[in-house]
Amino acid sequence: MGCLDSMRECCDRPKNTNIRISFPAVCFVWQTAMIILFGVFVRYDKESDTHWVEYKREKNITSDIENDFYFRYPSFQDVHVMIFVGFGFLMTFLQRYSFSAVGFNFLIAAFGIQWALLMQGWFHSLDYTDGKIKIGVESLINADFCVAGCLIAYGAILGKVSPVQLMVLTLFGVTLFAIEEFIILNIIHARDAGGSMVIHTFGGYYGLSISWVLYRPNLEQSKRLHGSVYHSDVFAMIGTLFLWMFWPSFNSAITGHGDGQHRAAINTYLSLASTVLTTFAISSLFQKRGKVDMVHIQNSTLAGGVAVGTAAEFMLMPYGSLIVGFCCGIISTLGYIFLTPFMERKLKIQDTCGIHNLHAMPGVIGGIVGAITAAAASTEVYGTEGLIHTFDFTGTFQRRSPTVQGGYQAAGLCVAIVFAIGGGIIVGCILKLPIWGDVADEHCFDDEFYWEVPEEEESLHPVLEYNNHMMINKRTDRVESNFSEPQT
Amino acid sequence: MGCLDSMRECCDRPKNTNIRISFPAVCFVWQTAMIILFGVFVRYDKESDTHWVEYKREKNITSDIENDFYFRYPSFQDVHVMIFVGFGFLMTFLQRYSFSAVGFNFLIAAFGIQWALLMQGWFHSLDYTDGKIKIGVESLINADFCVAGCLIAYGAILGKVSPVQLMVLTLFGVTLFAIEEFIILNIIHARDAGGSMVIHTFGGYYGLSISWVLYRPNLEQSKRLHGSVYHSDVFAMIGTLFLWMFWPSFNSAITGHGDGQHRAAINTYLSLASTVLTTFAISSLFQKRGKVDMVHIQNSTLAGGVAVGTAAEFMLMPYGSLIVGFCCGIISTLGYIFLTPFMERKLKIQDTCGIHNLHAMPGVIGGIVGAITAAAASTEVYGTEGLIHTFDFTGTFQRRSPTVQGGYQAAGLCVAIVFAIGGGIIVGCILKLPIWGDVADEHCFDDEFYWEVPEEEESLHPVLEYNNHMMINKRTDRVESNFSEPQT
Amino acid sequence: MGCLDSMRECCDRPKNTNIRISFPAVCFVWQTAMIILFGVFVRYDKESDTHWVEYKREKNITSDIENDFYFRYPSFQDVHVMIFVGFGFLMTFLQRYSFSAVGFNFLIAAFGIQWALLMQGWFHSLDYTDGKIKIGVESLINADFCVAGCLIAYGAILGKVSPVQLMVLTLFGVTLFAIEEFIILNIIHARDAGGSMVIHTFGGYYGLSISWVLYRPNLEQSKRLHGSVYHSDVFAMIGTLFLWMFWPSFNSAITGHGDGQHRAAINTYLSLASTVLTTFAISSLFQKRGKVDMVHIQNSTLAGGVAVGTAAEFMLMPYGSLIVGFCCGIISTLGYIFLTPFMERKLKIQDTCGIHNLHAMPGVIGGIVGAITAAAASTEVYGTEGLIHTFDFTGTFQRRSPTVQGGYQAAGLCVAIVFAIGGGIIVGCILKLPIWGDVADEHCFDDEFYWEVPEEEESLHPVLEYNNHMMINKRTDRVESNFSEPQT
Repeated sequence: MGCLDSMRECCDRPKNTNIRISFPAVCFVWQTAMIILFGVFVRYDKESDTHWVEYKREKNITSDIENDFYFRYPSFQDVHVMIFVGFGFLMTFLQRYSFSAVGFNFLIAAFGIQWALLMQGWFHSLDYTDGKIKIGVESLINADFCVAGCLIAYGAILGKVSPVQLMVLTLFGVTLFAIEEFIILNIIHARDAGGSMVIHTFGGYYGLSISWVLYRPNLEQSKRLHGSVYHSDVFAMIGTLFLWMFWPSFNSAITGHGDGQHRAAINTYLSLASTVLTTFAISSLFQKRGKVDMVHIQNSTLAGGVAVGTAAEFMLMPYGSLIVGFCCGIISTLGYIFLTPFMERKLKIQDTCGIHNLHAMPGVIGGIVGAITAAAASTEVYGTEGLIHTFDFTGTFQRRSPTVQGGYQAAGLCVAIVFAIGGGIIVGCILKLPIWGDVADEHCFDDEFYWEVPEEEESLHPVLEYNNHMMINKRTDRVESNFSEPQT
Repeated sequence: MGCLDSMRECCDRPKNTNIRISFPAVCFVWQTAMIILFGVFVRYDKESDTHWVEYKREKNITSDIENDFYFRYPSFQDVHVMIFVGFGFLMTFLQRYSFSAVGFNFLIAAFGIQWALLMQGWFHSLDYTDGKIKIGVESLINADFCVAGCLIAYGAILGKVSPVQLMVLTLFGVTLFAIEEFIILNIIHARDAGGSMVIHTFGGYYGLSISWVLYRPNLEQSKRLHGSVYHSDVFAMIGTLFLWMFWPSFNSAITGHGDGQHRAAINTYLSLASTVLTTFAISSLFQKRGKVDMVHIQNSTLAGGVAVGTAAEFMLMPYGSLIVGFCCGIISTLGYIFLTPFMERKLKIQDTCGIHNLHAMPGVIGGIVGAITAAAASTEVYGTEGLIHTFDFTGTFQRRSPTVQGGYQAAGLCVAIVFAIGGGIIVGCILKLPIWGDVADEHCFDDEFYWEVPEEEESLHPVLEYNNHMMINKRTDRVESNFSEPQT
Repeated sequence: MGCLDSMRECCDRPKNTNIRISFPAVCFVWQTAMIILFGVFVRYDKESDTHWVEYKREKNITSDIENDFYFRYPSFQDVHVMIFVGFGFLMTFLQRYSFSAVGFNFLIAAFGIQWALLMQGWFHSLDYTDGKIKIGVESLINADFCVAGCLIAYGAILGKVSPVQLMVLTLFGVTLFAIEEFIILNIIHARDAGGSMVIHTFGGYYGLSISWVLYRPNLEQSKRLHGSVYHSDVFAMIGTLFLWMFWPSFNSAITGHGDGQHRAAINTYLSLASTVLTTFAISSLFQKRGKVDMVHIQNSTLAGGVAVGTAAEFMLMPYGSLIVGFCCGIISTLGYIFLTPFMERKLKIQDTCGIHNLHAMPGVIGGIVGAITAAAASTEVYGTEGLIHTFDFTGTFQRRSPTVQGGYQAAGLCVAIVFAIGGGIIVGCILKLPIWGDVADEHCFDDEFYWEVPEEEESLHPVLEYNNHMMINKRTDRVESNFSEPQT
């Protein structure tokens, strides 16, 4: 009881955003750990090792062009752009949180990919002959994918957490992701080329659960910064467009060589095109005078890419992709209009970027579409070899029928949701500890607390100089006043 | 006569920008039509279908890397970036029209690529055995190309039309494009790798004709918004650079495998480099004190890529490419300085982005360069096989000589111009109907009418708060006052 | 003595930034020279010529996919983006120098790649049978690399030179680069895949030497513009991220087909990830309250890519790459905090972008890491064939041992430094001549002098109108007042 009280008391202490010790410490210690673990565990795989020339001869490979590098590297670079520029700039829409959006996205992605190479390596590419993880270009893509889950979660809590909390979120997020992915892809043997379930459903509900635990009752005190300005919206469109354009590469990056990658790219291209039209339509329909809302265009236009992820490599057919995109544009935009306010008011889930509409819901739809498409697969459509090849019905799974596969796809979706919500609540509780340097409710969505922010262009607007000066003083006062108490 | 009067009266009604019914309706109905048409007509081609594994065996293809996907996908993604980020951001230079520039570009491109897949499919890749269009990565590139024509046309009328008008422009533009392309490439059998004629000449004159029909006599009332601000110019440079950098991919995306793609990329790279220098030179030469004008750098530096489009796959020689770029940089920049004001004043053609200087003129030059280069081709330079391969002198065209080919190239150019001007005038007349929700002359170049625009950062500039508030009120008043009349 | 006096007097004349004659003249004359030289010297190589079809048959090449284009074009495009968007936007951080940053970067890169194709061609790919330079996609990559050296140098003198000076800097820079590269790669036979020595060390010290010669004692008079504003920092992040993401392509672009490109990409990916964490850590550790400084994030996060350049294709091992990145993040960030101010105060080297921390130091580290890794190479790790293949121990170098190679690597580093400093001082002296139209000390970092800059958005901020108006007048007065003296 006394323990609980002291816990509560501890949580109620005024917030201290000084992370001068904790933040560098976390970065240094974790990066050092990465170096040690990589030293013990990680080596190049056959195709990136200097022994490739011997391996090639052994396997009768006639040309260097058959190195997996040339199948996947262009897609890898597109995915890489999505992770760093796409996700980073998508979140720059807030008027005074662009540094944190793009900067902390950069930080946690750079940490996450290293940890993901290890976690995914232990589960997927451990060479039992020498106990080493062998990495190649496909490992890099998978690491980027894994990190995407955490970046999605960042979207829900954007503006409300400290970089230290983000590092913790990423550490646990990547760990949970690797386990969940292993269960879904290897044990259940569900297919999930573009990660509708594994990445988007997981990342979405993981972030929402954390946001629910970290509920901030007085967030409306930060309302003045909880919006965009003209140019921050244009910056966000950079993120939107790079995500939208490269999504075909995302969904096709790790599908089968040849027709698999080809078909996944086509399906995603079509689904995304369709989503754009229904997003504009719904956005215009629900606004006064038919005006379009930038928030919807920035986000809901991407829902089609999420929802086509699982089924992208299947014979979804071009019109099937268009239908998926059509529905997701509608659902996602309606989500922004009706569901997000409802969730904030009634369910106490504050979702800064609306990831529920962009990732969680479309991810679930993607999982369901995948299950249905798999269950409906037939040798008439796929061809005998094509069916085996597409669903990898080999080894212990060679007797599985498409209908049964459909069931397992659905099971995979459930695993993703369970891991996301369960993991999210636990991680949320960890992040609620008052040691991570997060800001007070009235100081959310402000770069001021974690970044050296340039003063406004005084010399160019001499009129403003005096006022700016006053403002800055005021702001500094405000900051300082929080810390007259003894610090942790 | 009474009909004409009522028509005129109808056109003179105060403008109503409320598109809350028409815009969503167009999006929904057209997208639904796409789904139905795709359901009836569109399927995967041999290389993106699960039967690829059998096809490969049949054709003795030894490796998946010979799937067309690996020849063209990296170029496709570059072209995709040009269409969405390149064209979109190039038009963000106006101070208060960035949302519309990048947003409506996004919308019409997403619609256009679907319609283009159908239109081009019917003309080019209809499989007569089953009546289906078979699509693969090359179809996606062609669809992107087709849409480029409409986005070019958007440049001429930027800031003066409603999104509904843009959708109509795209519907007809893509249709005209597909027919014109079929005539030029298949019937006349002209070569046009980078689309100097098919895309740029067509798109340019199509847009200019529409702009001529939609002439706005009182456009100077919107003058205050018809310029850039510092950061909007920097945004526009994002568009310029992505267009400039990826133009070699644009011109080489659908040329022949091997040396064809290789040579087209080199020629375009060189031509563009050369254009940059002459653009800077002319821009500096015609300004007081040698200052450079951002408008020229944003646009004229790209003219070399347009003009080398047709001849990119020919043996134009590196110095030939430099010469083409050299001339186009000069002509395009002089166009901005002298021709655009002249056209606006004398010819009543208001060309917001100066597409006449960036696309139309360089496109015509490109067509002429292509005709000359083709006519000058010889077996000494190309080799016997090389000549046949480059100009595709096979089938019914196997006896065509290079000189004759040169004539047909010139004929292709004429077809493009005729279709563009004829089609543009007809579409312009359709767009003049007073039902599309376009703005009044004094409200051009303003996002306010079709977008929810964020208020300025009040809390950060408390001094401005009061004034901003006033401004916003004033602006809203202005908007509202237009609509006290009964609405359509 | 009288000569020296008149020289000094000449240098002390008031600055005249009118470049209306000199700038267009340089552009026209040099571009014309390029056309003539290309006409005399440059042709397509075997793989981009129409004779490819015959060459293929001759060499028993079975598929077009083995054309070098498909091995290198995706990497080429990534490098191209780094040169134009990466370097260009990285330098937009200054509040009023974004036009010059991105615009002049564009100009000199476009000129430099042409001159580099010639210079590098004469040294590396001259076909002695016909006296022609044969170019292909690898030549384009090398030209982009060569230009990178000059763009790095631009970073040191950003805001302090005229475009004419930049053209001169590029002309000499490319020339020096090609000679230095020939000595290091061909004569000394050092390996330098990502150009740590050849590009970054050279470019860095070349720029710093020039900046030292061009020292401006009264630069603090431009202090008001020598900083960023909020959105200019976000623009700079576009540059940072595109450099960061595509650096694996940079370091792997011209390494050996197959495992060479594959391994170089992996090493660079890991090194860069590691750098990000230590950069954030040091930045936070040295600021009040643990705040992060945007300057460090924009620049030091890239140091790992520079430092892993030479060794990227070696068997550096994944943990080795992480260690390199770890150290460079620390050193580079500490450089920004301590070294840059020290260099400015004590050594009279004004380094606007801190290229010493981002390129010069990490480049030297990269050279040393390369020498050590090479010296430590063994047949156990590389395999017999792998060792020969990786270090190209063929022809006259077939008896060279790894240890000896290590020594030659170190020698290569010295050559780069000597060329950079020697060349930089000479070029600096040339640029000191008072004929190039550079600005006075008090007018640095201002686009106003070489660009038509748009007025601020008056109509949107009517309060500011009057004041802006005053400011603009004041600004114009200031400019004009400098030129009441007779002009050169």
